[in-house]
Amino acid sequence: MDPALLAVDWGTTALRGALLAADGSVLAEHAAPRGLLSIEPGGWAAAFEAEFGAWRRAHPTIVSLLAGMVGSRQGWAEASYCPCPAGLDDLADGLLWLQPGRLAIVPGARVENDGRPDVMRGEETQVFGALEHLGLGSAILVLPGTHSKWVRVADGRIVALATHMTGECYALLRRQSILARTLPPDDDTWVPEAFDRGVAQAQQPGGLLHHLFSVRTLALFERQGPAEAACQLSGLLIGEELRAAAPAAGSAVVVVGGAALAMRYQRALAGRGVAAQIVGAEASWLGLAALARRLQHRADPGRRAA
Amino acid sequence: MDPALLAVDWGTTALRGALLAADGSVLAEHAAPRGLLSIEPGGWAAAFEAEFGAWRRAHPTIVSLLAGMVGSRQGWAEASYCPCPAGLDDLADGLLWLQPGRLAIVPGARVENDGRPDVMRGEETQVFGALEHLGLGSAILVLPGTHSKWVRVADGRIVALATHMTGECYALLRRQSILARTLPPDDDTWVPEAFDRGVAQAQQPGGLLHHLFSVRTLALFERQGPAEAACQLSGLLIGEELRAAAPAAGSAVVVVGGAALAMRYQRALAGRGVAAQIVGAEASWLGLAALARRLQHRADPGRRAA
Repeated sequence: MDPALLAVDWGTTALRGALLAADGSVLAEHAAPRGLLSIEPGGWAAAFEAEFGAWRRAHPTIVSLLAGMVGSRQGWAEASYCPCPAGLDDLADGLLWLQPGRLAIVPGARVENDGRPDVMRGEETQVFGALEHLGLGSAILVLPGTHSKWVRVADGRIVALATHMTGECYALLRRQSILARTLPPDDDTWVPEAFDRGVAQAQQPGGLLHHLFSVRTLALFERQGPAEAACQLSGLLIGEELRAAAPAAGSAVVVVGGAALAMRYQRALAGRGVAAQIVGAEASWLGLAALARRLQHRADPGRRAA
Repeated sequence: MDPALLAVDWGTTALRGALLAADGSVLAEHAAPRGLLSIEPGGWAAAFEAEFGAWRRAHPTIVSLLAGMVGSRQGWAEASYCPCPAGLDDLADGLLWLQPGRLAIVPGARVENDGRPDVMRGEETQVFGALEHLGLGSAILVLPGTHSKWVRVADGRIVALATHMTGECYALLRRQSILARTLPPDDDTWVPEAFDRGVAQAQQPGGLLHHLFSVRTLALFERQGPAEAACQLSGLLIGEELRAAAPAAGSAVVVVGGAALAMRYQRALAGRGVAAQIVGAEASWLGLAALARRLQHRADPGRRAA
């Protein structure tokens, strides 16, 4: 099958690319640890050529769509943020074409929450990919990570967005705070009971800044070992995020992300009576493929009329 | 006047000492940047001699009382934590005498909150000093800092304690997180309106992990400068602490600590309708002097009977 799209998810620390067929199936994939933090200003075109030049020469007419931090002010070129409500058509309208008809950066999305903006780059594409995969037009989604994104989609348009700095705070507290003294830097032993205790604790009064200190005192009095402490900390932070952001019991949520983290969210959500389906990183490819189909419909008046 | 007490507050990063007269007045003070983080294991006795040996030789019968992290497991010697409720007499009973009748470390205090311990070292002494200063036997106190302590005292005994990692989280977020990109490392310009906005924002739904991200987005859209961002961040963290820990409007609180930080707490508390009195670092001297008087009463049966 001939590839129809070169899809790239280009973020803060890494890039992932895929050659996709017209039906969205993945023909080839490529990943590299090159992202915003490691690419020099002005070095993006050369990095793109180095990583994907061979594919592009082999398929000279292929369209390339790039989503993620590649479109930020410190990225290759600054793509605007689509104001919400924003659907796939709005993302298509907002594409920043670096090579007309051939190479474009997908815009991010933004909302205003009580006069404060919130933004995402890359996740908007995964949102539409996940909904496409599940055949949904409306949903509540969470995309866990360094900056976890909660997104509400209604009738195919993103209508709400809230970022939580959960993953970043976890990393800082685990590695740089006083809690690091009781936490093993490389031990990721999964102790579900300790995680659950952290999630439950976060629902109690006291506040996150208070609950965090118990990770230290439980170690001080030797009531919990290091692996349990790391899982309690993870539960405290994810639990605090869910306390603030998760919908009511009986609702359903789509979790988009890598399996290990997505399963923690699914578990914590289940504890609140919220059902969660997981969609993996393929959501990026599905979203970029859906965006490419919009472009093709527009370029082909015959199909548009059909 | 002859000094009656060598009072030392010896913490994580620094020590402060004072020669006190029998009536508690300060005859001399001394400070040095030597604490838990910079003193080698086994080096405490030598450090004490270097900093205070001259005073002790000049007043050979003086009693020395040391409060703070000097009594932790990584300190000079581990003084136990007094279980709460704990009053001045309990602290006196729990003194760890390194030289009988001459040199002792003050114990910390601990509580159990829903099966999780909470602890302090040094603050228990400041609490009793502040109450002595104000002539109070019952109060709610906050001791802001790296690890902020909320303490409730009833009838001269500490009955409740909750630690909030507010100062440590502020430092981590300001210097090490993505927010550091928008925050000036050395600019402490005070922008009260930005601080107030942060405090108010922390009372709204959304959760701390979410609100933090607005420090970044407000800079991204150039709606706020760096000094404002630092004050908003301070307001968000102090506001989150008060949301969880502050008493209801109409209450009164004693804030114990340095003027700059204590005034931020006083301002944020006033915004919630809570009146706050400030007591400075002299609370340590007043607390150690009160403890020394208890010892003297015990040692002097004539006075005890009086």
